[in-house]
Amino acid sequence: MPNPDRCFDPEPSQRTLARSLYQSVSSLPLICPHGHVDVLSLAQNTRFGSPAELLVIPDHYVFRMLYSQGVPLENIKFNPDHREVWRIFSTHFHLFRGTPTGLWLRDELESVFGITEKPNADNADALYDHLETLLEKPEFLPQALFKQFNIATLCTTDAATDSLEPHLALQQAGFDVRPTFRPDKLLDLTSKNWLEEIRKLEALTHPIENFSSFIAAIQTRREHFKAAQATATDHGVTHPRTKRLSRTELETIFSKALHQQSYLEDMQNFTAHMLLEFAQMSIDDGLVMQLHAGSHRNHNTQLFEQFGSDAGADIPVAVNWTNGLETLLQEFGNEPRLRLILFTLDESTYSRELAPLVGHYPALRLGPPWWFMDSIHGIERYLDSVVETTGLANLAGFNDDTRAFASIPARHDVWRRTTCNWLAKQTLRGIVDEADAFEMAQDLAQNLVKDSYRL
Amino acid sequence: MPNPDRCFDPEPSQRTLARSLYQSVSSLPLICPHGHVDVLSLAQNTRFGSPAELLVIPDHYVFRMLYSQGVPLENIKFNPDHREVWRIFSTHFHLFRGTPTGLWLRDELESVFGITEKPNADNADALYDHLETLLEKPEFLPQALFKQFNIATLCTTDAATDSLEPHLALQQAGFDVRPTFRPDKLLDLTSKNWLEEIRKLEALTHPIENFSSFIAAIQTRREHFKAAQATATDHGVTHPRTKRLSRTELETIFSKALHQQSYLEDMQNFTAHMLLEFAQMSIDDGLVMQLHAGSHRNHNTQLFEQFGSDAGADIPVAVNWTNGLETLLQEFGNEPRLRLILFTLDESTYSRELAPLVGHYPALRLGPPWWFMDSIHGIERYLDSVVETTGLANLAGFNDDTRAFASIPARHDVWRRTTCNWLAKQTLRGIVDEADAFEMAQDLAQNLVKDSYRL
Amino acid sequence: MPNPDRCFDPEPSQRTLARSLYQSVSSLPLICPHGHVDVLSLAQNTRFGSPAELLVIPDHYVFRMLYSQGVPLENIKFNPDHREVWRIFSTHFHLFRGTPTGLWLRDELESVFGITEKPNADNADALYDHLETLLEKPEFLPQALFKQFNIATLCTTDAATDSLEPHLALQQAGFDVRPTFRPDKLLDLTSKNWLEEIRKLEALTHPIENFSSFIAAIQTRREHFKAAQATATDHGVTHPRTKRLSRTELETIFSKALHQQSYLEDMQNFTAHMLLEFAQMSIDDGLVMQLHAGSHRNHNTQLFEQFGSDAGADIPVAVNWTNGLETLLQEFGNEPRLRLILFTLDESTYSRELAPLVGHYPALRLGPPWWFMDSIHGIERYLDSVVETTGLANLAGFNDDTRAFASIPARHDVWRRTTCNWLAKQTLRGIVDEADAFEMAQDLAQNLVKDSYRL
Repeated sequence: MPNPDRCFDPEPSQRTLARSLYQSVSSLPLICPHGHVDVLSLAQNTRFGSPAELLVIPDHYVFRMLYSQGVPLENIKFNPDHREVWRIFSTHFHLFRGTPTGLWLRDELESVFGITEKPNADNADALYDHLETLLEKPEFLPQALFKQFNIATLCTTDAATDSLEPHLALQQAGFDVRPTFRPDKLLDLTSKNWLEEIRKLEALTHPIENFSSFIAAIQTRREHFKAAQATATDHGVTHPRTKRLSRTELETIFSKALHQQSYLEDMQNFTAHMLLEFAQMSIDDGLVMQLHAGSHRNHNTQLFEQFGSDAGADIPVAVNWTNGLETLLQEFGNEPRLRLILFTLDESTYSRELAPLVGHYPALRLGPPWWFMDSIHGIERYLDSVVETTGLANLAGFNDDTRAFASIPARHDVWRRTTCNWLAKQTLRGIVDEADAFEMAQDLAQNLVKDSYRL
Repeated sequence: MPNPDRCFDPEPSQRTLARSLYQSVSSLPLICPHGHVDVLSLAQNTRFGSPAELLVIPDHYVFRMLYSQGVPLENIKFNPDHREVWRIFSTHFHLFRGTPTGLWLRDELESVFGITEKPNADNADALYDHLETLLEKPEFLPQALFKQFNIATLCTTDAATDSLEPHLALQQAGFDVRPTFRPDKLLDLTSKNWLEEIRKLEALTHPIENFSSFIAAIQTRREHFKAAQATATDHGVTHPRTKRLSRTELETIFSKALHQQSYLEDMQNFTAHMLLEFAQMSIDDGLVMQLHAGSHRNHNTQLFEQFGSDAGADIPVAVNWTNGLETLLQEFGNEPRLRLILFTLDESTYSRELAPLVGHYPALRLGPPWWFMDSIHGIERYLDSVVETTGLANLAGFNDDTRAFASIPARHDVWRRTTCNWLAKQTLRGIVDEADAFEMAQDLAQNLVKDSYRL
Repeated sequence: MPNPDRCFDPEPSQRTLARSLYQSVSSLPLICPHGHVDVLSLAQNTRFGSPAELLVIPDHYVFRMLYSQGVPLENIKFNPDHREVWRIFSTHFHLFRGTPTGLWLRDELESVFGITEKPNADNADALYDHLETLLEKPEFLPQALFKQFNIATLCTTDAATDSLEPHLALQQAGFDVRPTFRPDKLLDLTSKNWLEEIRKLEALTHPIENFSSFIAAIQTRREHFKAAQATATDHGVTHPRTKRLSRTELETIFSKALHQQSYLEDMQNFTAHMLLEFAQMSIDDGLVMQLHAGSHRNHNTQLFEQFGSDAGADIPVAVNWTNGLETLLQEFGNEPRLRLILFTLDESTYSRELAPLVGHYPALRLGPPWWFMDSIHGIERYLDSVVETTGLANLAGFNDDTRAFASIPARHDVWRRTTCNWLAKQTLRGIVDEADAFEMAQDLAQNLVKDSYRL
């Protein structure tokens, strides 16, 4: 490991063709249109912290697995003794057998840090020391790795009120790093922090006294993001519901929120309406709209109360895209200026809803397998389930969606290998011909993502 | 292309056995128990029209893909300049890479029309001219192709009030072409056309003044269809819900409908009840009952208002067979005279509901992968998901469900190849033995469909 | 058949490695933590009855398939002429082509009874006579087969009020046979037999006059089961709903039940609450809790009225684990003393809900593919869908869940072969390394089940 033929099927003719296809795309620059890299660290080019901070503490895939097997979060995610965190991680490394996390970590350890051993209780300290030594070196600073990783474009995810100074600084320094406008917190009317978010937004725009001024403030911020080279927005909802409210209803809901008197139903209706507003704004300003639906956030309330969000306890729920998006698509689905990219955690909707929807509506594209589905088998189920109905042209390519910077090349590599292996099989089965397969490999590696995100 | 080993897995032992199995069924006559071929053109044996009318304009798989990529329907489906339609289609032919439509079209172009090139912008005019020349020839008239395609039986889909003269004429001429009784329009109480349908039905039967005379009229028409060699009915519903209404409720709903005062709920309840009536009629007259559920028709209301139904905007929704069919199955599920064939667009119901249901109730059979699922991977997921619970005997074989006449052989060929390839793998894995596999290939190619449709 | 390479993929490198992995686990003793073997017959060591009683009459997989193809249950399951039952079964044996039942039966007939022919109309009588002769022999008595099958541990499923004498007698005789506490009948408030169950429970414990004494009686019985070496409980529900009721609500519902005035809603709420009580009891007494959800029992009411439960007419329904278990997990999901093993018939929840849940909550484990999914393809879909998110450590290994004693080795063998074949492919694709694969094969064959069931 990294096995040069990893991800490829063992059947020799498929493996040979997969290898050729992969060689045609393996050195293409990485385009990362959606992710969660810490832009400030990147701009300041500060070292990544300890090995635990690099590889364990920020990675929800890692700590949720350890937690599921009885390791308290205090010992792993919130433990100030990072060498101890690393030891615990190493001792439990066998848990990641057969998981994409295991695959990414082993690739990353070898390709980036020259470590060929699997972490375990015995070598934990030696590996920690080795990593510490490397992380001190200038060639392991974020900007050096950015270049080494051959990243062409990296988009971060930013709240509506976040500063975009780091992006501008990076662009000045020659890095194509762009923000993405994610206004979710502005919709969470029942949160005790909502009013604070509104105050922050006001400070950056103008007084927000009603729904109209709220909308105008959002528009102002979108322009600010566009000026900083943003090409997309991002929206996360539990259920992809859309519903048009009257101006009166909106002002009533908004006024209740300003008085902190909102109920769950207000928030749900408000969100269902706001998706329509965001679609309209995308039509107006050309920002690509991303919609991530189906995650029941903070399912584990004990952990949420103790540690807050992002404790590895977001659990998917079934979603209904066909009915939920109906209002939005009836209004805007035929609009060529709208580009709406959909992401699901409910694979039963791939063939039932999403492929038929994106294979019809000009405004829609289907995002790559998301989160738990970003895996070899997840990618294969996705391709098997959607391509026959959508073709490739309605897909949005790949994104790594990660805050684990050092894992970016490994994630893109699994996508490229797995798509090439899949194309090899389609070719050998006479479903596509070989010339087409090479073009499709390029599409999957970079053309679709560039086109979908208007990069 | 057509690659002689297309659809087969590359593993040599599987490919060799798949080839043998396929050779044992490849020249069997085609039995087409469900489809949408234009029976009048077939009876009149008029030429197929332009290449665009043959291959593009009637094919929703084709124009929905082009529409999804920004080609207006005016340019492709409703464009009187058919050469221009063909050019647009050819220019966009790469969109069909990896889709069954692409596979069918290439097979059809080569096997029927001798065209080995893929359509593209450069060869579009030459291919158009070539096709035009061929379509002029007598051997490309519908009845000649019917014979050349080795079609044994072709069933069309016909409204309750349609004339069956074309079927009778074709039967006279030696073609086994049969109607299928599809009374959906008679249930659509909220449609502004419903009363007109009732008037047509009256004209063919007797005065319809209440629910009882409505039922009697339907029975009369079913007898008429049977006399024209029909063996089946077909019913399309969004949700497979069944519910028994009282005679009083029925008369009330029917009376409201006659006064054009029906609401959506009336229509839904009426449909839920009528499925019970149709099951009872099937028990009485022996017509096989087909139920297609789970398509949200005309999802794109803008297109619907502009172009009407069948604009490529029908989108699947999740369905609940277990609870939805409960009333029907409790009344009639054990009835050997009832044969009810179920079709789904919700693959999550294959293993969860449909295989367990058809693997228990004597009245039920499971139809083949429908619509978006009629594809190599769709067929494989279907076989993998249902056969272990149902065996083969509870399956209804294959149907092409197409209005694209010239694609019929290509569609059956993909089914035969894919089922043989699947059987080859089951055999090599010791799940079935080789002698059984050859019998199962025959079952899948023709025995199951003959038995299920009582042909 | 049994083909020595059955279940393995045909690709030579995969087959070779699968064979090596399988050889490393094939002779491990069988651990059977969940099933429905008749413990009394085992304790009394009485012969298995006729071949029909051994292989046909108790096996719902068998008689539901025959029933679906028109064989009345009177002829097969409730027919006193067992030779005739065997003839019918043999004549219809082709129905099991491609099913796990077919695979198990052929393995069982050959490995246990030396029969290499497939049953058919011609050999039915000869096979019957052969089986009759063997079943007379001492080496075919239950306890002899128990030893021959190399069963290390066998857990049965027992009502709360069942006698555990047979288990104790078997333990005395050196067989590790343990009961499992299944109190479902005590929750079925609307059943006309409920009061009788309560009376039985009273007779074994103390007067049950209210909810509190009901709970105490259950606790008493659990202690009794623990004393008889039980390590687990089992609970079957249609929907996995959990909800906390107040003490007042509980006493009201319980009092209504004692007066036989319960409604469906009472029963549903009571069950939703009782799952919380059972979780608390498991925390207190350490019994592992199993939850089987998603089967709509006795869907065919005609058969239910005629023949009662277990007539092959239980049909799965969609379930919602994420919301349904929310209350339970919020209270107890982080509790390391709780071990809750989940079983589903809704495969769409594998990747969407179950893998993310068990990959986070320390209290959860995921049971193996259940019932209709206990098959080669079912196991493969399960592994493909869950391991990338859960790893192996959150899985509960395998159980055979059968009342067909003679099929136990065949079922475990299919699991072992299929998991080894799957591991071989992961290895050749570089997803796991070969050393890990051999350890994972041991885990899947026995370590996970021992650990999960605290055996």
